Amino acid sequence: MWFQKGITLKPRPRGFHLVTNEILAMLPEIHGMKIGMMNIFIKHTSASLTINANAAPDVRVDFESYFNHAVPEDEPYYLHLDEGSDDMPAHLKASILGCSLNIPIANGYPNLGTWQGIYLCEHRNHGGSREVLVTINGE
Amino acid sequence: MWFQKGITLKPRPRGFHLVTNEILAMLPEIHGMKIGMMNIFIKHTSASLTINANAAPDVRVDFESYFNHAVPEDEPYYLHLDEGSDDMPAHLKASILGCSLNIPIANGYPNLGTWQGIYLCEHRNHGGSREVLVTINGE
Amino acid sequence: MWFQKGITLKPRPRGFHLVTNEILAMLPEIHGMKIGMMNIFIKHTSASLTINANAAPDVRVDFESYFNHAVPEDEPYYLHLDEGSDDMPAHLKASILGCSLNIPIANGYPNLGTWQGIYLCEHRNHGGSREVLVTINGE
Repeated sequence: MWFQKGITLKPRPRGFHLVTNEILAMLPEIHGMKIGMMNIFIKHTSASLTINANAAPDVRVDFESYFNHAVPEDEPYYLHLDEGSDDMPAHLKASILGCSLNIPIANGYPNLGTWQGIYLCEHRNHGGSREVLVTINGE
Repeated sequence: MWFQKGITLKPRPRGFHLVTNEILAMLPEIHGMKIGMMNIFIKHTSASLTINANAAPDVRVDFESYFNHAVPEDEPYYLHLDEGSDDMPAHLKASILGCSLNIPIANGYPNLGTWQGIYLCEHRNHGGSREVLVTINGE
Repeated sequence: MWFQKGITLKPRPRGFHLVTNEILAMLPEIHGMKIGMMNIFIKHTSASLTINANAAPDVRVDFESYFNHAVPEDEPYYLHLDEGSDDMPAHLKASILGCSLNIPIANGYPNLGTWQGIYLCEHRNHGGSREVLVTINGE
């Protein structure tokens, strides 16, 4: 069985945001699947998706701080400057973290670990709403 | 055809460990598939999976050294400190490398390149055993 | 329906190269699919694949500059030296960016965002031609 649905995530400030429940609430179709895979694909190049700790909120603050240090704005060697200081770092962060999550489905639920949650990683200062496409295949 | 199996990887020291044979030995079901995909998903946020060089062991030592430099412990801006100096870097490394591998299956085998192997990346000092879930789909 | 095809990408200089059209031109089979997933897997450990901005070419130049700063050659702690200064950084970059892309298919086309393109990331000075395996599943 195949299923595909577009989801619009509301605009969020720059940073890392836990969106597990927001996404899964849109996907009641999963509950009928015994085994399968779910792909969540973000259709942008300056925001990304990752899976990480779903409890302590300070982890997500540290993610933002770390990536701002690891991928600085205004590096003297950047050529692509015309969309603002936050743009080129946003592209780089998006590729380091990735745009496509693949999560197994087991007995009607995404089989995440106890401490795993889905992060929307907003790398722009004003990224606006973000489009994700969810594709599910299973039996 | 769908197939899903949980595998417990034994505790390993912090570092990068080649686990290709350990994982594939648990998956004889692959051999009946002509075309398919295998997903290997680690259900943790402080360990990760990647594919890299399967020969020279010093490559794996250099992975550990590099990531310790690139994602340092005890950065002054870290807020999430209560699980030890190795914890926040472990979360960051886990998202940089990823928790979910997708490998094509061809003629009964994972179609890895000659020099490709599967690494378990243990980012904690004492991470304990690690749970992975393998989901296979093919014909 | 399953479909699998090997594609040889011609040798390219070290850097980030837009290969969306080159890959998709080899895959007319996609056009018959209503919903599906496409996996593109590069069978090497010193080159990688990512999805990022498909317009301004200076973004790709900045990718090369950034990753050369973030993953330097000739770090004093590297042990794996016998394949040249560009080799160990190439392995590290390959794992940071990844070897396996998963792209949804909708109504006969890969459902990339407007600004998304597929990059071949060539991390070696003289990497030669690169083998990718495309696996498609859908209905």
